[in-house]
Amino acid sequence: MKILVINCGSSSIKYRVFQTAEPGGLQSLAGGAVNGLGRPDAVLEHQSRERESRTALNRPDHRRALEAIMNVLTDHAHGGDLWDASEIGLVGHRAVHGGDRFAGAVFVDGDVIAGMQKCIPLAPVHNPANLEGIRQAMNMLPRAGHVAVFDTAFHQTLPQRAYMYGLPYDLYEKHGIRKYGFHGTSCGYVAVRAAEVAGRELSRSKSVIFHLGNGVTVAAVKNGRSVDTSLGLTPLEGAMMGTRCGDLDPGVVLYLLRELNLSREQVERMLNHDSGILGVSGRGNDMRRIIGLAHQGDHRCKLALEMYVYRLKKYMGAYAAAMGGIDLVAFAGGVGENSPLIRKMILDGMGFLGIDLDLARNEEAGAEDCILGSDVSRVDVVLVHTKEELMIAREALALAKRNPGRTGGDE
Amino acid sequence: MKILVINCGSSSIKYRVFQTAEPGGLQSLAGGAVNGLGRPDAVLEHQSRERESRTALNRPDHRRALEAIMNVLTDHAHGGDLWDASEIGLVGHRAVHGGDRFAGAVFVDGDVIAGMQKCIPLAPVHNPANLEGIRQAMNMLPRAGHVAVFDTAFHQTLPQRAYMYGLPYDLYEKHGIRKYGFHGTSCGYVAVRAAEVAGRELSRSKSVIFHLGNGVTVAAVKNGRSVDTSLGLTPLEGAMMGTRCGDLDPGVVLYLLRELNLSREQVERMLNHDSGILGVSGRGNDMRRIIGLAHQGDHRCKLALEMYVYRLKKYMGAYAAAMGGIDLVAFAGGVGENSPLIRKMILDGMGFLGIDLDLARNEEAGAEDCILGSDVSRVDVVLVHTKEELMIAREALALAKRNPGRTGGDE
Repeated sequence: MKILVINCGSSSIKYRVFQTAEPGGLQSLAGGAVNGLGRPDAVLEHQSRERESRTALNRPDHRRALEAIMNVLTDHAHGGDLWDASEIGLVGHRAVHGGDRFAGAVFVDGDVIAGMQKCIPLAPVHNPANLEGIRQAMNMLPRAGHVAVFDTAFHQTLPQRAYMYGLPYDLYEKHGIRKYGFHGTSCGYVAVRAAEVAGRELSRSKSVIFHLGNGVTVAAVKNGRSVDTSLGLTPLEGAMMGTRCGDLDPGVVLYLLRELNLSREQVERMLNHDSGILGVSGRGNDMRRIIGLAHQGDHRCKLALEMYVYRLKKYMGAYAAAMGGIDLVAFAGGVGENSPLIRKMILDGMGFLGIDLDLARNEEAGAEDCILGSDVSRVDVVLVHTKEELMIAREALALAKRNPGRTGGDE
Repeated sequence: MKILVINCGSSSIKYRVFQTAEPGGLQSLAGGAVNGLGRPDAVLEHQSRERESRTALNRPDHRRALEAIMNVLTDHAHGGDLWDASEIGLVGHRAVHGGDRFAGAVFVDGDVIAGMQKCIPLAPVHNPANLEGIRQAMNMLPRAGHVAVFDTAFHQTLPQRAYMYGLPYDLYEKHGIRKYGFHGTSCGYVAVRAAEVAGRELSRSKSVIFHLGNGVTVAAVKNGRSVDTSLGLTPLEGAMMGTRCGDLDPGVVLYLLRELNLSREQVERMLNHDSGILGVSGRGNDMRRIIGLAHQGDHRCKLALEMYVYRLKKYMGAYAAAMGGIDLVAFAGGVGENSPLIRKMILDGMGFLGIDLDLARNEEAGAEDCILGSDVSRVDVVLVHTKEELMIAREALALAKRNPGRTGGDE
């Protein structure tokens, strides 16, 4: 069977096709992205083992972008990856916000769509795009089983003391205002893979997962279950991010409104798009550039780097306290996978937790998942290349195996 | 010499008179409070070693309340503590917000008053009351030296990475938006006293201070200097408090404005007065009552208690990470001094930090400052009864000694 994974954002669609392989494995056949939805210069970039292609698209909407993706996948003249769209038995859809309704992957039906619609206020940009992608894909591939995999699902195991805010209780009861967390699919993958790399039993481990991309999640995973995570009701809470502020005195939001007379819209834009690494450094949010400028002595880039690291250190300590210690630290995401410097800075001075980084292993780590801790480190330190799309395919497949007869496809 | 300490709030004035004693000591002679400023049922309650009195005051303003305080202090017919107001050589004023201008105690002059006025937007309720108290006391005791002791001063040693928010840099440069912290006078006293009780050198220690009252501060004090603290630009950030929310996704503030159509004023009131222990429990903010109801099985009181403790645990872990470990934990403030249960809950599972609480010492701790850790605990755990007024008198006296000739008084 072939599984198509779709990640529909508001301005892009990413996709990947997997082939099931025995025993229980999944092999990536092809993948790519349409960037610039709605724009005259949108492009579909496609890669498979044998070929790469770029296709210009003029102001595509979600439907036309998905049609273009199916066309390139079945383009026999240029070595198509599929004979026919009907080979796809399962479609795994990345869904951002499942509220507290979805604690795992689900087959999409009217109820699920209604549930996702209810979560739109919690993710006003992402959920409508996800829903549109699901609708179009279901029209296009009506025989396939469509599975929604929620970015919030992995964190539905948080205990109540961790997910509640110190607010009047009815905001939770009536309005669902609580911490949900994001990057759950990535964290779930990394937790499993990190334990594998470290040779540890996931069901008996206390892990801190650093998913460090342009968005950042730190997660505390105890015995395989997420027990705390840094993002909140929204992706503004937590670590400092590329352009998002992360943890902030709520009084500052009120101060900006009251004393600086900013509008709610201005504050919202500022905290989401003009803050974080970008706001502090004033030199963009590309971590490699910030590191380079910091080394040249740029004070604000140095400060942005120090704040980024300092706040991540504090999360590690806080989550150690939440779990009564740690035995595994995993780095993933663009920055986590590619910056030995950031990893080293985060782990500096963490000997009191039993962490001892092997500097050579850290410098030399490359394309393979590997161990970064020294041989005497009591805590395993692991680098994992996160694979969100693979994880979505896995979750969709596992659900399908528990529910025979709900997939289509010819194989 | 006698030193008068004044703490002017918007609705109350607290005061205490100290006598200097050799060598360098300070002895409390008398103290009390006027509560209900501006109300018809305001009361001045006064205690000294020999007497206690209650005086009804009808709608007193700051000036009339201070006059009543001076009257009761010099009331010869009833065993007055002073012969004459002129015995007071120094007045120490508690000042809430000194911004980043005041890193220590200062003699009040026109510049200091102007500096405090500039900080009014940062503490719109407290600083005007402090200023009014200073003005009236200076009129009343013109020969005394008047010293302002700022609640923010102790935390002025925070490194920039700890006090900056992940916001556009010009909010800091142009508007002073950064973490300042509060309860500095208490934290400073507790840090010194805790090291003394533990028999540790303050200049070589890594301490976490829990000031747990209706307001809460957790502070990381490294080698005697505050390096991080939980309250922020405003007292809304940090641990969960009696009625204040503490740490909160800034996106939640925006969500309340956008999705629930609350006004800025409504949100401000909610986060300051209807949140925290009160908001979660729905049963007030008296910790003894919450603990009692939790034991009777009240779910929301149990949750409020668990959240309160869980968030404090995370601060301890975060500050351990900030300092590269800890060797001293100190509890102070109403809850910190009086609740063995809360102390025990916070330290449960903290063995990985080297903390081992002695359960009997914890239960039996009473009116004296004492050690709570077991004999094998690598981290000293100490109970300190905080003495803010004594600390203000000390700071005022130390400043006066460095500046001879600036105090009045007949002795």
